[in-house]
Amino acid sequence: MIYITRRERFNAAHRLFRSDYSDEKNAEVFGKCSNPLWHGHNYELFVTVKGEVDPETGFLVNLKTLSLLIETLVISKLDHKNVNLEVDFMKDKLASTENLAIGIWNELVTPLRELGAELYCIKLCETENNFVEYFGN
Amino acid sequence: MIYITRRERFNAAHRLFRSDYSDEKNAEVFGKCSNPLWHGHNYELFVTVKGEVDPETGFLVNLKTLSLLIETLVISKLDHKNVNLEVDFMKDKLASTENLAIGIWNELVTPLRELGAELYCIKLCETENNFVEYFGN
Amino acid sequence: MIYITRRERFNAAHRLFRSDYSDEKNAEVFGKCSNPLWHGHNYELFVTVKGEVDPETGFLVNLKTLSLLIETLVISKLDHKNVNLEVDFMKDKLASTENLAIGIWNELVTPLRELGAELYCIKLCETENNFVEYFGN
Amino acid sequence: MIYITRRERFNAAHRLFRSDYSDEKNAEVFGKCSNPLWHGHNYELFVTVKGEVDPETGFLVNLKTLSLLIETLVISKLDHKNVNLEVDFMKDKLASTENLAIGIWNELVTPLRELGAELYCIKLCETENNFVEYFGN
Amino acid sequence: MIYITRRERFNAAHRLFRSDYSDEKNAEVFGKCSNPLWHGHNYELFVTVKGEVDPETGFLVNLKTLSLLIETLVISKLDHKNVNLEVDFMKDKLASTENLAIGIWNELVTPLRELGAELYCIKLCETENNFVEYFGN
Amino acid sequence: MIYITRRERFNAAHRLFRSDYSDEKNAEVFGKCSNPLWHGHNYELFVTVKGEVDPETGFLVNLKTLSLLIETLVISKLDHKNVNLEVDFMKDKLASTENLAIGIWNELVTPLRELGAELYCIKLCETENNFVEYFGN
Repeated sequence: MIYITRRERFNAAHRLFRSDYSDEKNAEVFGKCSNPLWHGHNYELFVTVKGEVDPETGFLVNLKTLSLLIETLVISKLDHKNVNLEVDFMKDKLASTENLAIGIWNELVTPLRELGAELYCIKLCETENNFVEYFGN
Repeated sequence: MIYITRRERFNAAHRLFRSDYSDEKNAEVFGKCSNPLWHGHNYELFVTVKGEVDPETGFLVNLKTLSLLIETLVISKLDHKNVNLEVDFMKDKLASTENLAIGIWNELVTPLRELGAELYCIKLCETENNFVEYFGN
Repeated sequence: MIYITRRERFNAAHRLFRSDYSDEKNAEVFGKCSNPLWHGHNYELFVTVKGEVDPETGFLVNLKTLSLLIETLVISKLDHKNVNLEVDFMKDKLASTENLAIGIWNELVTPLRELGAELYCIKLCETENNFVEYFGN
Repeated sequence: MIYITRRERFNAAHRLFRSDYSDEKNAEVFGKCSNPLWHGHNYELFVTVKGEVDPETGFLVNLKTLSLLIETLVISKLDHKNVNLEVDFMKDKLASTENLAIGIWNELVTPLRELGAELYCIKLCETENNFVEYFGN
Repeated sequence: MIYITRRERFNAAHRLFRSDYSDEKNAEVFGKCSNPLWHGHNYELFVTVKGEVDPETGFLVNLKTLSLLIETLVISKLDHKNVNLEVDFMKDKLASTENLAIGIWNELVTPLRELGAELYCIKLCETENNFVEYFGN
Repeated sequence: MIYITRRERFNAAHRLFRSDYSDEKNAEVFGKCSNPLWHGHNYELFVTVKGEVDPETGFLVNLKTLSLLIETLVISKLDHKNVNLEVDFMKDKLASTENLAIGIWNELVTPLRELGAELYCIKLCETENNFVEYFGN
């Protein structure tokens, strides 16, 4: 069993808020992250899969295939987008790093399995000081 | 003559577009950076000042004072904000990294001089692959 | 179950030595790290907590609260301090990275639980080439 | 139980290919990584060992000893070398990051045990976007 | 006048040697870098151009155009290649970082001028500890 | 004319204070950096030299020679030392980053010239947020 990780990046806008909260309540709970005019981040995404090394190729998975799959299913939906308004798998969810990591896991887990790789971890870095890791429930 | 640099960071939303362009023209010239629903970045800002070392303190400038000045005049106006809509010194300007660097220079050059430090360079990094440097005109 | 990590930093002096060793023995066992006139480091601390995402906020834990707790209980005691002489939770302990990581764990585990978050890992980096991880015993 | 990690680096040449594949097949499966005239990388190696803290020294393991062992058994064999042609423990293996990580594990696991440390993880970074982790089988 | 920098990366094999030196002389002058079986690096390239901001676009130069030009004229010739054997603009030159930086300058300076941008600096990093900067002669 | 930079690192203790100031005055001017029990840093040092490429070797200067000279004249005096108490070239000087950079310049400028390389810049990073550059007076 071996683990391989691919890093990808995307730049997106978002805000943290609940529509059933007043502006004051949103500001109190989410602070400056609830700015109604948005802010954004350079997100770093680390996708880790696990499996056996294929003795024919020496690979767990072809990195080009892995990268293309992440690009198609995740990055193209998030890069230079508004997480709250434009990302189908984040519809009606709070755009927190936690929920975004779980959403990305859900997008990737089945297609990766079809590729013969088992998704092990989604690590999502919002700033150099904060990151979230999700290993499935 | 010595040079000292302070790094600060801010997270902001922006878009690149001209209101006198059609949507098609904006997309053609600015690509995905013109997304009308915004995107954003973790900006890294490096402020370099130059001057003589004060023999009394061994400092060119007190870094806490320098940091506080950058925070007050620049970071507080940009962090968790929309560069196009909320930043006074970017009003009616294209929110490119180039213009943002020049805007930050103009905010800091006089107050730094009053502090006894001469602004030498504004370096502004938009992503790990792109940065702009401005040394005054 | 999700994991969230907060990075904090502190700059401190320390030395490695045993008072029951001769100077020669200290130099032999601890090398240049036993310099009696101290040396120091920019330590990087990564605090990882685990738990469930609160459906109300989308958060495992509010990062501002987490950061403030780490600042109050750990960083304020270590930053710009002498680890051997000034840090209550390191009294009578060898100031190794291992012991420092365990000491920080012990400071944080109960207060974090009261905050509703379970401490999962303390990662402490002494240089770019060395780090320690502690997950509790 | 505590975990300590030492980072080391080496620069090496390699290529991915099978001698029982035609050139076309190699290019198809391994892409530009199969260039017959080689390419190379700055590899970053993270060796993590686990164990108990020695109450006498505050160490899990003396880092200088750990570093010297990695240097002798691994780095000296790989640094400024051709992984396919010059590295004894990679003979007749595909020079993938996966196989290289497993090969390094096999070189270190027994000598580390004799040092009183249990090897926990080999993490090998080929580029800033790709890395492999191996924890033993 | 403003300066904008684009980072690109390539992975390549090379060796340092002179065919008019004996193997012993090559080893003496170039050390392990003269290994006849090659070694390699993850090179980081920073291309800095200078010019005026276009008031119409807010750009000094369109970064996508700049990146494409560097990719076409430099990266495609170097990435996953052997610098000594396969790179036209390094033919009959010692494959040192210095010569490689000068070679890249010469490839880019005229095409960039035709793009309306003046090449200011080529910075080429061979490892995390060494880099070369060339500003033209 | 080309520029080559070598990075070296050292870990040291220091404090900022004047013996002709009261403790209160030191705390007021230098803040927590004046802690009488010391603190410390992982300093990063970038030494840049300039000159012509030697057509025989392709080098401006042999990096191994450059690194050894910096190690002998600077790093061995600073690493795991107390800057205020143990460093000959900092005697009777305030241990600020500015003064340390100037002190390192003075140690290196003549020996580098004898090596045939002209010292161009000393860049000294105290933390990830602060650095000083000195180009000679």
